[in-house]
Amino acid sequence: MSKVKNAKNGTQLKSQMTDEELLKLEAKYCSWGDTVHYVDKPNIFSECAGCYLYDRNGTEFLDLQMWYSAGNFGYNNKRINDALIRQVDKLPQLACQYLHEEKIRLAASLAGRMERTAEEKGRIHFNVGGSQALEDSLKLVRRQAGRSLVFAFMGGYHGRTLGASAITSSFRYREHYGHFGERALFVPFPYCFRCFYGKKRDSCDLYCLKQFEKLFESEYYGVIDRKTNVCEFAAFYVEAVQGTGGYQIAPREYFAELKKVLDRHNILMVDDEIQMGFFRTGKFWAIEHFDVTPDIIVFGKALTNGMNPISGVWAKEKLISPKVFGPGSTHSTFSSNPQGTALGLEVMKIIEESDFAVEVPKKGRYFISRLKSLQKKYPQIGDVDGLGLALRVEMCEKDGFTPNKRLADTMEEIGLSGTLSTGGKKRGLVLDIGGYYKNTFTMAPSFYITQEEIDLGIDLFEEALIRALKRG
Amino acid sequence: MSKVKNAKNGTQLKSQMTDEELLKLEAKYCSWGDTVHYVDKPNIFSECAGCYLYDRNGTEFLDLQMWYSAGNFGYNNKRINDALIRQVDKLPQLACQYLHEEKIRLAASLAGRMERTAEEKGRIHFNVGGSQALEDSLKLVRRQAGRSLVFAFMGGYHGRTLGASAITSSFRYREHYGHFGERALFVPFPYCFRCFYGKKRDSCDLYCLKQFEKLFESEYYGVIDRKTNVCEFAAFYVEAVQGTGGYQIAPREYFAELKKVLDRHNILMVDDEIQMGFFRTGKFWAIEHFDVTPDIIVFGKALTNGMNPISGVWAKEKLISPKVFGPGSTHSTFSSNPQGTALGLEVMKIIEESDFAVEVPKKGRYFISRLKSLQKKYPQIGDVDGLGLALRVEMCEKDGFTPNKRLADTMEEIGLSGTLSTGGKKRGLVLDIGGYYKNTFTMAPSFYITQEEIDLGIDLFEEALIRALKRG
Amino acid sequence: MSKVKNAKNGTQLKSQMTDEELLKLEAKYCSWGDTVHYVDKPNIFSECAGCYLYDRNGTEFLDLQMWYSAGNFGYNNKRINDALIRQVDKLPQLACQYLHEEKIRLAASLAGRMERTAEEKGRIHFNVGGSQALEDSLKLVRRQAGRSLVFAFMGGYHGRTLGASAITSSFRYREHYGHFGERALFVPFPYCFRCFYGKKRDSCDLYCLKQFEKLFESEYYGVIDRKTNVCEFAAFYVEAVQGTGGYQIAPREYFAELKKVLDRHNILMVDDEIQMGFFRTGKFWAIEHFDVTPDIIVFGKALTNGMNPISGVWAKEKLISPKVFGPGSTHSTFSSNPQGTALGLEVMKIIEESDFAVEVPKKGRYFISRLKSLQKKYPQIGDVDGLGLALRVEMCEKDGFTPNKRLADTMEEIGLSGTLSTGGKKRGLVLDIGGYYKNTFTMAPSFYITQEEIDLGIDLFEEALIRALKRG
Amino acid sequence: MSKVKNAKNGTQLKSQMTDEELLKLEAKYCSWGDTVHYVDKPNIFSECAGCYLYDRNGTEFLDLQMWYSAGNFGYNNKRINDALIRQVDKLPQLACQYLHEEKIRLAASLAGRMERTAEEKGRIHFNVGGSQALEDSLKLVRRQAGRSLVFAFMGGYHGRTLGASAITSSFRYREHYGHFGERALFVPFPYCFRCFYGKKRDSCDLYCLKQFEKLFESEYYGVIDRKTNVCEFAAFYVEAVQGTGGYQIAPREYFAELKKVLDRHNILMVDDEIQMGFFRTGKFWAIEHFDVTPDIIVFGKALTNGMNPISGVWAKEKLISPKVFGPGSTHSTFSSNPQGTALGLEVMKIIEESDFAVEVPKKGRYFISRLKSLQKKYPQIGDVDGLGLALRVEMCEKDGFTPNKRLADTMEEIGLSGTLSTGGKKRGLVLDIGGYYKNTFTMAPSFYITQEEIDLGIDLFEEALIRALKRG
Repeated sequence: MSKVKNAKNGTQLKSQMTDEELLKLEAKYCSWGDTVHYVDKPNIFSECAGCYLYDRNGTEFLDLQMWYSAGNFGYNNKRINDALIRQVDKLPQLACQYLHEEKIRLAASLAGRMERTAEEKGRIHFNVGGSQALEDSLKLVRRQAGRSLVFAFMGGYHGRTLGASAITSSFRYREHYGHFGERALFVPFPYCFRCFYGKKRDSCDLYCLKQFEKLFESEYYGVIDRKTNVCEFAAFYVEAVQGTGGYQIAPREYFAELKKVLDRHNILMVDDEIQMGFFRTGKFWAIEHFDVTPDIIVFGKALTNGMNPISGVWAKEKLISPKVFGPGSTHSTFSSNPQGTALGLEVMKIIEESDFAVEVPKKGRYFISRLKSLQKKYPQIGDVDGLGLALRVEMCEKDGFTPNKRLADTMEEIGLSGTLSTGGKKRGLVLDIGGYYKNTFTMAPSFYITQEEIDLGIDLFEEALIRALKRG
Repeated sequence: MSKVKNAKNGTQLKSQMTDEELLKLEAKYCSWGDTVHYVDKPNIFSECAGCYLYDRNGTEFLDLQMWYSAGNFGYNNKRINDALIRQVDKLPQLACQYLHEEKIRLAASLAGRMERTAEEKGRIHFNVGGSQALEDSLKLVRRQAGRSLVFAFMGGYHGRTLGASAITSSFRYREHYGHFGERALFVPFPYCFRCFYGKKRDSCDLYCLKQFEKLFESEYYGVIDRKTNVCEFAAFYVEAVQGTGGYQIAPREYFAELKKVLDRHNILMVDDEIQMGFFRTGKFWAIEHFDVTPDIIVFGKALTNGMNPISGVWAKEKLISPKVFGPGSTHSTFSSNPQGTALGLEVMKIIEESDFAVEVPKKGRYFISRLKSLQKKYPQIGDVDGLGLALRVEMCEKDGFTPNKRLADTMEEIGLSGTLSTGGKKRGLVLDIGGYYKNTFTMAPSFYITQEEIDLGIDLFEEALIRALKRG
Repeated sequence: MSKVKNAKNGTQLKSQMTDEELLKLEAKYCSWGDTVHYVDKPNIFSECAGCYLYDRNGTEFLDLQMWYSAGNFGYNNKRINDALIRQVDKLPQLACQYLHEEKIRLAASLAGRMERTAEEKGRIHFNVGGSQALEDSLKLVRRQAGRSLVFAFMGGYHGRTLGASAITSSFRYREHYGHFGERALFVPFPYCFRCFYGKKRDSCDLYCLKQFEKLFESEYYGVIDRKTNVCEFAAFYVEAVQGTGGYQIAPREYFAELKKVLDRHNILMVDDEIQMGFFRTGKFWAIEHFDVTPDIIVFGKALTNGMNPISGVWAKEKLISPKVFGPGSTHSTFSSNPQGTALGLEVMKIIEESDFAVEVPKKGRYFISRLKSLQKKYPQIGDVDGLGLALRVEMCEKDGFTPNKRLADTMEEIGLSGTLSTGGKKRGLVLDIGGYYKNTFTMAPSFYITQEEIDLGIDLFEEALIRALKRG
Repeated sequence: MSKVKNAKNGTQLKSQMTDEELLKLEAKYCSWGDTVHYVDKPNIFSECAGCYLYDRNGTEFLDLQMWYSAGNFGYNNKRINDALIRQVDKLPQLACQYLHEEKIRLAASLAGRMERTAEEKGRIHFNVGGSQALEDSLKLVRRQAGRSLVFAFMGGYHGRTLGASAITSSFRYREHYGHFGERALFVPFPYCFRCFYGKKRDSCDLYCLKQFEKLFESEYYGVIDRKTNVCEFAAFYVEAVQGTGGYQIAPREYFAELKKVLDRHNILMVDDEIQMGFFRTGKFWAIEHFDVTPDIIVFGKALTNGMNPISGVWAKEKLISPKVFGPGSTHSTFSSNPQGTALGLEVMKIIEESDFAVEVPKKGRYFISRLKSLQKKYPQIGDVDGLGLALRVEMCEKDGFTPNKRLADTMEEIGLSGTLSTGGKKRGLVLDIGGYYKNTFTMAPSFYITQEEIDLGIDLFEEALIRALKRG
């Protein structure tokens, strides 16, 4: 935590309004259509530092989720903040129609890395916000294939623009918004704790993948013309580790085998790394755990550590060369804005200078070991798993399997109430719930979390669990 | 210009690369799919301040376009920069699932303003980037109407996500990206200099609007069931002043009359103010010139003065109340990020404390008067028009009417070459070309541009014109 | 009428039910979703012959509409009936997977005719029912262009399958059936009596066509990429004379000029002759009046004189050769069923042996002259026009222009009541209403109608008009 | 066979052309886009009677397929032919806008039957051709649900209009025709011989159905909003016995269980009986074997015994009452044409007067027993199954399982060559191939086939098999 300034010393913008007054204002003028009102009484935070959020009373909340993994490098990271301020001093603004050095360097840094690690020449196209980068990837796919339909995973989440919603599994995101003529065909993800086919991992022999492969055996399964080997679906959108879906981790051999099937039928693999990229799983891209190079990678969030957003796609040269994806193919006002690129460049430098490939898995292993200890005490902790510092904890009934959404909700609420007392002072705990049955804590702590902070997190988690179980 | 720091004194990040080296890197690793390569040799800029961009040699470019109107309040505006830095010190990051004060205050500021000026209660839903806000507006429309098709204007531009491309007139943006089942029905905009119907403004009696109205006379015109008064099109997307389309300004009575037609058939009016909002035209929203309150307003760009992007929609209560647009309706990671809201709040304060309603039109009038003087000298200047500081200059053949794209291109290229000599030193001029025939300079100077800077702009413009005419 | 047997001598299937009992049964078990219940009390007919329908009381109804032109060659045409019966004796059934002589001969007859008259090699693909042939034409278009959107006319009607409804102008046909992602862009038809643009035919200089052409001038009009000359719309669906739309007749030079525009941008012209083909307008195809060869022709209805349905498309070789439209491209059980082909072949023989090119226009001129005489007496007859025996009469207010749907409805109802007394006995008159304002009688009498029968029709029409005017 | 006239005595239309000349003409003027050219040298037939087709040399072909079940009641069935001729004498034509007795009686006969047998009030909507009736059913579904997407079965076939192609499993039917925004979600059919999940029928416990049911367990499986219980898919299109898919027969308890799942989520069941209706399976509708009443039934083909086509839908009152499916909802020229209704009425009378419920299963059992005897001799006969007279025979490799398309193709070709010699004279055998792997003979013999003719069929089948096996 040494790298972040002590937030408590920061200048305070004086505010005359109480929380209640602010909430009243919010109830009147803010749309409730975002995710704030998933809970009954939303929290107002006013400061942040390292692993912590602070409310307006100064109560400290340990954050185990870090903005869905946008804040990998800790809140209020001085080095990254300074990079932003330097850019603000010099070139805070520039229309993306013109070039600036940081854009070029960041693209070179990202695409150069792929050249070295994956031996694959490609290019970077920037945008702002993950969904917009996702939309750009859809354009690349359609441009190449001349078809618009794609496969995607059950449990997959790719954003909320209309195009991204069409390939995000949950129907709830489409329900009220008319017809989605590009709805993906959703394929079971290898979520082995709750196998869609009721198989067990040790004996399944990747049955789920074989079922996918089977689709190509007869034209009557509806996806391929066996005479022309043209598939109705132009690409398969994957998250190597599912994000919103609940931090499910696929078996290690899964994606390489999947890619073979896709290659056989000229189907592109698009890898959405928006949540899992930039070492969240202990490797630069989560897909690197699976020995496979996707055709397109979509990234965002942590590239700027949750500051001025910048997102983008990397694509293989043949998909994105100026010849096929020429000037004016796509565009957005803030697509490669100079603050975002400066932040991204600093993040890339930090990554180069750090040893996250070792540190993140190490911290992850420790965290999991502590969670597994808890699991032994509490049968309600059904599944504990993780890759790097992407961790999942499923809250269940006593049988350790039946999903217990209520228990997870109660624990989240207790954590956010800021009334936990572990460690001798009133504290809060920031947890987030995901998963197919909304019973899974998806944890994405700061890469700079210390062992002591992990221990604190475990203690707070246990306190919340005990209190929730008491409520019954 | 007093409000902006002198960019020349800023710390300089040392860079070992020459422009040529950077361009080589860019050619290798950057996608050319954005708008950078619309010109043969793109400029690299490294600093900015007030109305000026600076290349790496220190050459000063007067910018008359200000990032498509994202930079209304000048580059490197100290007050706005300071607001950003304050927020970076205190709460640089916060997941949008939680509340922070600036978000609430900004929503209240924007929606409260509508309550006072338009006597219309509504709410704000934030997002990041104009296209994403536009997509949110499409969700609001579909949610309300249960139908997805909309009207939009020929010449209209609403962004580049797939959903926004479907309602943006230019087919080029859709051409390579598959089928667009929600393609808008494009209606002629009242672009009176080149009337779609060949009419003259002084005698047309809004013929174009009457033709639109005629569509509702018989079910056989294809848009309405006269028995049920249900229209196939749920909304009409408008830009009060067309942006990318070429800064066309509709006749003052146009939109009020249009709204009457739409209301008669329960068609929503969605007003895209992404480019023209925040006093670009001399009023807060451009639509305010037209005495009409749209049902939904979409905004972005200048709200943060081109810094950390934040965008949003304002919608009438009945369209966006929690009852119809409940929690989880839409969402994005950076949708109401704290840096963006802090910037927006500062911009709103500046607006409150300034007199842009007087200043902007005054500067606009002066600018136009100077352009009109030029027009008298050069028959190639076909049309000069403007609203506030949104100005348009059409470059034509000698007849003053036939579009002359080549002339505009040459002038832009000369301006960007940084070789103009007006005012005694080597300078550049930043112009941008838009319009149906790509022959129109769309000018959006800083609100803080001085009379001297306008004069300089006119001189540089004339020099570029003379040199371009010489090239023949 | 000599060619048709006397229907009154036919064997009568004894029926114990009264009309009332039948109507009661109908109200219980028949869907009312077809067009029967457009009128309050539908007629039950039990026999037909020549130009006449007979109800179960033997009341004779003169039919001036002949099943929307399906019955061109008269009801109960002995020669055609005999051809059917011959086929029933010999080869009444055969799966369309196998060949039979009549299919081949009919295709050769139709395509051979095009070779001779239009000097264009092509092929015939059969189907059953006009809509299905229309759907086949959409497949040919999409196969060729790789795009699905098309232009079609305001007032156009192409059928009621979902695909045909998408390109039929009236929204009412789509309103309750979800999203139509292939909705055509509807272009004003040159319906000169009520010009969409308010022009007059003698001075318009085909303004409507020029407005269509204008769409291709700028990419911002939304239909074309001027750099690639690719149009967003793959084809233009036309009816040379609009059918359901109200028997509007385009100016003679219209379609040749339109075809030039389309050819310039590689847009196919698809000519829907389902209602107007087979000499209804005095030429084999209605489009032959306009000196232009479409790329695809769709036909149906009268090919079998309203008997066992067969329909089809003719397409230019390059669009339909086995190379591009290979085995299994499309198919339907009854597509070239032997009874249909035998009937079609007989109709083609009758056409060859007759002189409809002279007879039909001659009868049409006489009919129009009689209608024009009526028009002089009754200002409510607004427009009288016709091509061959496709005739239109617009019922208006006294001003001769304002559409008077009520008057037309009343006249139709009086005609169908079977209570007219012209000619000394109780008679009925079968009229059908079409047109953009549902005030137009579209008349399509039998080709064998005699001068006496035309006179009778005029008298009955006048009687109905007088009675309707009295009702007020 | 006593009921059909001896086709050999029929009048012969003299034809001067040889088969070769006709084929040459066909190659020039006929589209090859239908299914004729699935074989290299298509047969030309010129007469038919009972179970037989005759080519122009008088060679007799025993037809075991009967026009994909359109010819249930035998070719050239005198009674049915006479009904047609009676109608041709009396009311051969009538616009479907007017009523005629046969239409009402036929609707009453069909809907009345549902009232008696299924205790369900409903109505009939007629059309022409199965695909058009299918399109009408899509309209009923969309009208009711306000959504357009549907489930359908892998292996399902519902026609070739664009709308029907979207819900037909084979991608080949969509491949060249643009984007299909209403593509169904295809679900595995219980094709137990080749279970999609690799299960065995005796132990599977309807695993496939449970997998379908599982989709509704979590919103992340992509089909349902569990909060609102709204499913993204409005209906499930089923064939109780798959037709083109290969005459697969579902387990008896399957559809009742499926209907329970659908009812739970307000999903309509639409039963496509176009091929299997009218006692093909030994019951009026094939679905009657499964103790379930669908919400909509689509029918066609055999209703007119392959003569003048008429098709239709039956729907439950709440889906089709005039209140929800009012006048003008859909329509086609030939939708309830008098020849078709007269034929349908005669077929309904024959059905009433016959005992097909006993006769058809009895003949089917005999046929199957003979096929099973063959199966014992030839391991290449992999699966023999049947319901009523819908029979399936899968040709395989020696292992009795691996699909052997080549063997089936060769047998079909030998049968169609007309060179079999069983029974002492040169004969042909008409077989048709279907199934997921195109190795399945789908047999649909005439209901009037005699035991001797079945024996002949078996002998010819064996001869073809022996000759094909020799070819190797």
